[in-house]
Parts: sequence; C-alpha cells; structure tokens
Amino acid sequence: MRNLMTFACPFRRKYPLPSQKDDLFFMSMAYNEAITAWEEEEVPIGAVIVREQEVIASAHNLAETRKEATAHAEILAMAQASRFLGDWRLNESILYVTKEPCPMCAGAAILSRVGEIVFGFSDEKMGCLGGKLALHQLLTWNHHPRVRFGIMSEECYELVRVFFEKRRKKDDNISNTTMTH
Amino acid sequence: MRNLMTFACPFRRKYPLPSQKDDLFFMSMAYNEAITAWEEEEVPIGAVIVREQEVIASAHNLAETRKEATAHAEILAMAQASRFLGDWRLNESILYVTKEPCPMCAGAAILSRVGEIVFGFSDEKMGCLGGKLALHQLLTWNHHPRVRFGIMSEECYELVRVFFEKRRKKDDNISNTTMTH
Repeated sequence: MRNLMTFACPFRRKYPLPSQKDDLFFMSMAYNEAITAWEEEEVPIGAVIVREQEVIASAHNLAETRKEATAHAEILAMAQASRFLGDWRLNESILYVTKEPCPMCAGAAILSRVGEIVFGFSDEKMGCLGGKLALHQLLTWNHHPRVRFGIMSEECYELVRVFFEKRRKKDDNISNTTMTH
Repeated sequence: MRNLMTFACPFRRKYPLPSQKDDLFFMSMAYNEAITAWEEEEVPIGAVIVREQEVIASAHNLAETRKEATAHAEILAMAQASRFLGDWRLNESILYVTKEPCPMCAGAAILSRVGEIVFGFSDEKMGCLGGKLALHQLLTWNHHPRVRFGIMSEECYELVRVFFEKRRKKDDNISNTTMTH
C-alpha cells in the first residue's frame, strides 16, 4: 500500500483560461493527458491534435495497458484525428505533444502530413525532430511539417523524470519487501 | 469497366513447399499478403511475423481502406503479434516484409524489440534500415535488431512498380473519359 502511495502522481492538471487558445492552452491539454497516463501507470506522455483552434483528438501513452509498443500518445491521437476527419491527411492540423517524438511517431506524423508539430521537451536519445535526428528535414520525404518546441518544456520533462524516479523507488521497495519476508 | 480490368493484379500468389520453412517460404507469405493489398486497391506491401518457425501474424497495407496513414503492413502485423503473445516485446520474432520499412515502421520495430527484420527490396527514398537511413544502427537505441534483405527482392519490387504504373494509366483513362463526355 505504501508503495502505491509513493508512486501516486504529485503533479496537478493545469487549466488555463479557454478564452486564450494559444500554445500554452493546447500544451496544457497534452500535459493533462500525460497526467492521466501516469495515473494508469504508463510513462506520462500526452498529445492533442488541433484544427482551426479546436481539439479534434486527445490521447496518452497506452503501451503497457494495450501491450503494444506502438500505442504512443502521438500515434493514438493521429488515428483519432484521421477517424474524425475521415481522411488520413492531417495537413491543416497541429500536433501538440509533451515530448519530442521518437522515430516511429515522427515518421507517422510525416506520413500523415501533419501541418505542424509542437513539442514540450527535447529528447537527445530518441528524438527525431532535431534532438537525435531531424527526420522532418530529409529532402526525400514528400512532406516537411513545421516544427516548434520549448512550450512548457520544464513541466513536461519533470513529469517524466519524477515518474521514472518514483517507479524505480517503488520497484526497489517491492524487491526489498520480498527479500525480507 | 475497362479501367478496372486494366488495373487488375497480373501477378500470382506463390506457394512454396511448406516442408521447407525457409526465408523463401516466409517471404512468399508476405508477398501473397501484398497481392491481397493490390486486390483491395492498396499499395501492395505485405508482412508476416514468425516465431519458432510458425507464422504468428500476417497483414498487408490498409492505409486507404482504414483512412489511416499508420496502417502499414508492418505496424498491423506487429500489433497482431503483440496481441497473440500478450506482450509488446517481440525479441524472439522475425519480421518478413516485402519492402524496406519506412521511418515509422523501422522505429516501431525497434521499439517492439523485434529480433530480426528481413525485407525484400531496398527503398533509397524512405527506407530506414540502410536504404536512406540506418535507424537500427544508432547506438542510442536500447535495442538493435538484426537486419537482412534481398529475399525475393525483384518480385516484391515488380509488384509495387507495376501497381503504380497501372494506377497512373487508370487515372489517366478516367480523366480522359470524363473530358470527352
């Protein structure tokens, strides 16, 4: 029981004024999705897709729950948006995501012709929109989405950092408990 | 009517002896999936996933049908395999696919920890396992699948080349017909 409590998410959802539909507003919605992911014991990453100032898709990482490595927030959000629009082309849409997309998600966003990608924090290890690689700048692709980053980067990064820190502690506690019994 | 006939798939499915469960046998099954894709008016790419000499997943490109840019043969096959095994980790599995995977699919295979990837023909424009990029060789990933290629590469390539040739002709015929009426 103590372990579960230790692992609870210490961060709060953010609710900026809906009258200001700016980057901060939409990234807050992606951030709130990331908190939902934590509450479901998933790595806390969230994404929303915006078209004409309206959110048309909203998702969080579900890799563990669905037992599918491909169930990243961005992939799920893009699938939702495509279903909503009845079209796989997302040229007029903006993808907001708390972390720089991995190769799979960056590739999927390029294939889906997402107009713009805005991410929270950079990922030097796996990020493919400038962090480790810059897939979107390869001239052989048919589509080159605009890319911006740095919106709420600190909050988005802290969420992931603290999640892994707490999960490690929880795992250590469990193995210690098991060993002393 | 004539247009549809022109567009029909002129290639036949292959049935090597099941007693020889080698690369040719498994790539033939991926090839047959690609033919099914053509019959559904999808770009003819197919994939199967093999574990302990048994096919545990089999899929073809469904991007147009599902109206999802992410519905590539490899992604669908990996999702099937994960469901079958009840685990997103595919370390013991081999992915056979008729074409070199795109960045999305290569990324997904690395994330899914696919043990080995065997593809038919290389793609210098979008291929991410050596053709354009070599995502699997980046040292920052946790997992580095083995990669082989060249199995039935000519047949797999011809399928895609002729598909695009015939589709262009069909589109031209349709626009000519429309213009003369």
